[in-house]
Amino acid sequence: METAIAGYTYGSDAVARSPLSAEEFDLLKKTVLFGAEDERYLRLAGEVLADQIEAVLDVWYGFVGSHPHLAIYFSSPEGVLDTEYLTRVRARFHQWILDTCNRPYDTDWLNYQQEIGLRHTRAKKNLTDHVRSVPYIGMRYMIAFIYPITATVKPFLANKGHSAEEVEKMHQAWFKSIVLQVTLWCLPYVEPANF
Amino acid sequence: METAIAGYTYGSDAVARSPLSAEEFDLLKKTVLFGAEDERYLRLAGEVLADQIEAVLDVWYGFVGSHPHLAIYFSSPEGVLDTEYLTRVRARFHQWILDTCNRPYDTDWLNYQQEIGLRHTRAKKNLTDHVRSVPYIGMRYMIAFIYPITATVKPFLANKGHSAEEVEKMHQAWFKSIVLQVTLWCLPYVEPANF
Repeated sequence: METAIAGYTYGSDAVARSPLSAEEFDLLKKTVLFGAEDERYLRLAGEVLADQIEAVLDVWYGFVGSHPHLAIYFSSPEGVLDTEYLTRVRARFHQWILDTCNRPYDTDWLNYQQEIGLRHTRAKKNLTDHVRSVPYIGMRYMIAFIYPITATVKPFLANKGHSAEEVEKMHQAWFKSIVLQVTLWCLPYVEPANF
Repeated sequence: METAIAGYTYGSDAVARSPLSAEEFDLLKKTVLFGAEDERYLRLAGEVLADQIEAVLDVWYGFVGSHPHLAIYFSSPEGVLDTEYLTRVRARFHQWILDTCNRPYDTDWLNYQQEIGLRHTRAKKNLTDHVRSVPYIGMRYMIAFIYPITATVKPFLANKGHSAEEVEKMHQAWFKSIVLQVTLWCLPYVEPANF
């Protein structure tokens, strides 16, 4: 079903290649303390979130929509919200939650983080969806979003009757993954020699 | 006592100026959902952590010291750990925990985040402590450190008999502050037009 998601190119030849070596990627995982236990708890989070993803997206879209300084990224340069653009991105955002929980963090995954990062920069913003919008998303908001994207997920992880300890472990695995992904998304914003 | 900390220049004319406007700073605070309640819980965290700071730093220094890819930032270009450098930075790190909890996040604070950021880049790394070390810290590790610097503090917040809800609120305020600060520390790594 993946090919049905507009602009979702995971694992295909169209995806950018990450300039990071496998060793550099491994060192980043170590820095966020990401290990096999986190992989297991992400799989569990994937089960827990599976039928709640649209509700999670409602929270995130509500957050973006209620803050004009964020809504501009889905708007025309004149400030008119592009609902078709929002809808297309939402389908990929849905899949991104599944990928975060269920995909192995291998070379295909690493390359797709580079692709996602590029799609927020001047290099590729707006191209995937053929839209007129602001030309890039400031790196400041990529990093700052670590907080809302992490914190808002926890109540959903607690919705399926798991113990507080299991919920916490799922949430820590999610938190690590988000920090890891945002780090990788920021790569194309800087000179390689400063990353 | 602040002037007794080598290289600690908070509030002085020697501190860099942040290029961010007050409005841009405010939008970043909004993006990490940082508000008055978080300020109150950071003050409480400051009380809770006050006599535990060296123990927190032991955890962080242990983490850095046990990972060669992180220890190099406190080492000579030939890979020899510089214990005097570690000690000087540690005194500022101690004060940084206090500042994170107790300082108002005003213009002086904003400017000091710019100064801290610069001290990790090629522009100012090693200058403050007159040391020979690697010329910069890769931006990847600035962002990735959000995880360990956030997660490791929670047990210390729980050490003084506060309720689980109070500990959680202190921890969320800490988490928001770390994301906000790391965002600001990354500013000097990128072209202003991409930040």
